[in-house]
Amino acid sequence: MSKKAEILGLLKNSRPEYVSGEDICRKIGISRTAVWKHINTLREEGYGIDAVPHRGYRLLNVPDRLYPEEIMDGLDTRFVGKAVFFYDSLFSTNREARDLALAGASGGTVVVAEEQTAGSGRMGRGWYSPKGMGILCSLVLRPDIEPGQAPPVTMLTAVAVSSAIEKVSGIAPGIKWPNDLLVDGKKICGILTEMNAEMERINFLVVGVGLNINTDQFPEEIRDIATSLYLAGGGRVSRLEVLRQYLKEFEHYYRQWLEYGFKPVLEEWKKKCVTLDRPVRISTSREVWEGWAVDVDDTGALVLRTADGELRHFVAGEVSLRTG
Amino acid sequence: MSKKAEILGLLKNSRPEYVSGEDICRKIGISRTAVWKHINTLREEGYGIDAVPHRGYRLLNVPDRLYPEEIMDGLDTRFVGKAVFFYDSLFSTNREARDLALAGASGGTVVVAEEQTAGSGRMGRGWYSPKGMGILCSLVLRPDIEPGQAPPVTMLTAVAVSSAIEKVSGIAPGIKWPNDLLVDGKKICGILTEMNAEMERINFLVVGVGLNINTDQFPEEIRDIATSLYLAGGGRVSRLEVLRQYLKEFEHYYRQWLEYGFKPVLEEWKKKCVTLDRPVRISTSREVWEGWAVDVDDTGALVLRTADGELRHFVAGEVSLRTG
Repeated sequence: MSKKAEILGLLKNSRPEYVSGEDICRKIGISRTAVWKHINTLREEGYGIDAVPHRGYRLLNVPDRLYPEEIMDGLDTRFVGKAVFFYDSLFSTNREARDLALAGASGGTVVVAEEQTAGSGRMGRGWYSPKGMGILCSLVLRPDIEPGQAPPVTMLTAVAVSSAIEKVSGIAPGIKWPNDLLVDGKKICGILTEMNAEMERINFLVVGVGLNINTDQFPEEIRDIATSLYLAGGGRVSRLEVLRQYLKEFEHYYRQWLEYGFKPVLEEWKKKCVTLDRPVRISTSREVWEGWAVDVDDTGALVLRTADGELRHFVAGEVSLRTG
Repeated sequence: MSKKAEILGLLKNSRPEYVSGEDICRKIGISRTAVWKHINTLREEGYGIDAVPHRGYRLLNVPDRLYPEEIMDGLDTRFVGKAVFFYDSLFSTNREARDLALAGASGGTVVVAEEQTAGSGRMGRGWYSPKGMGILCSLVLRPDIEPGQAPPVTMLTAVAVSSAIEKVSGIAPGIKWPNDLLVDGKKICGILTEMNAEMERINFLVVGVGLNINTDQFPEEIRDIATSLYLAGGGRVSRLEVLRQYLKEFEHYYRQWLEYGFKPVLEEWKKKCVTLDRPVRISTSREVWEGWAVDVDDTGALVLRTADGELRHFVAGEVSLRTG
């Protein structure tokens, strides 16, 4: 832990009281000047810190920023979030997580950014998230599985994000197969899982989540299909709280999957799914099919009953609800 | 094409005759001094070029180096080898190919190196190839498929390499499931396929081949399990010829697979396989099984009949022949 993080820890533990500069010096083993420098850095980072002669320093408020110190503070996970990389602005969190993984970052490593300059969703599509308004978070994972066994990861991520949002805000997003989260029929979260693998084993996965929290306006062209927790009536929610809850939920479902298989996660997923037992249209890269969404099978494929009564399994595609 | 490559082309087309410096200047549109410079560069690269006053230049010999100009010279493929990157020494050709692919290199891009400083095989194992003695070649591929559909690529690569070696040297390597090439029971070629993908589509594959051609000695610790075409009695073979044949064969089987599915390739693969209809031992990351290698199924999995008559399908593992 850095000296700065140690000072922040002291301030937090003493809240709402003051800690004397002398105490800080003694406990952390640095000079008064060094303390003052770190306090200034913390202030620049947005921490409200009161300084009163003869009494010392007092933490007034924590900024709405996804700093590693805040994310990791008391996070009771076993491996998720043991390393957290924070960036004010990034090309994309998935790309950064990939580069870290290629350089050896361990499973559970978290990458967050306040802004992405080239964030992208599935199939190369874009992702809109104005600075500081959402959660842009990518996880490095190193499960000992084959490439074909990876799809459940995206589905358990959808369950984890939905649970986290519900626990923090009371709003329960529905899941649209395979992994979009919807509130009022509009997208509130996108998930992009990327893989680096040999034929018989995965080197690593990167699971990226783009989550709209406090965004109060979307560009004209996506206004009908995108929403945020704020716009959906969830009020102003702490991004930090949602993120921390997500990391906990993620670890829970991820470990459940590795230990007990896909079934328990799939049950949760189905409960939250809004595209089952409904007439749907599915567009694959080659065709468009219509039918009744009967089920999702054990591999995560969508099972459609077509007009002629045939059952078809879809591994990939874009689903929309048919009305009438 | 570079001016240097154009000059080389002129020299090749005129063999065994001389081309006058004047002709070169006129046809390529550069000065006598520039011609002289390029000739010197070609000589530094190992080309034997005779220069006689009033007669001009004559190509005597081409170096045993895997230069792009030589690889691409008259290569009648549709997409494989349209871009070739050559390196005297590389960390690993797979890594370089991956970085090129991440930067947008198109399918069919070839990376070759005379030497790898950190070449690696499947499951993170090493690969021994002294400088200039073998073929170290990686291909970038961008098939429109899902991650689970990729394993045939490795198997068709084994077929392509085996065919290329047989056509050039007369020696026909056998295939050991899933993708090692053996001559006299020793490994002559290793294949490492790596994948970058989303859950429902592949971004790109990199297929790396390490092929022992003229290596005349292996380190003590792998002498019993490794061989080269030279050591196997194939004589001194032109690496260039094997590589060019491989690229042609690869494209043939790759396109056959995309157009007609895995079956035709699998038939070829089975014909060359030396671990079918035999008692084998297979070690997976978790267990060791013994049985009779009955077949390879349509997904490329090895089918083993165990002692109790049960059929088991193995997607991954290390196979060895059982003797007695």
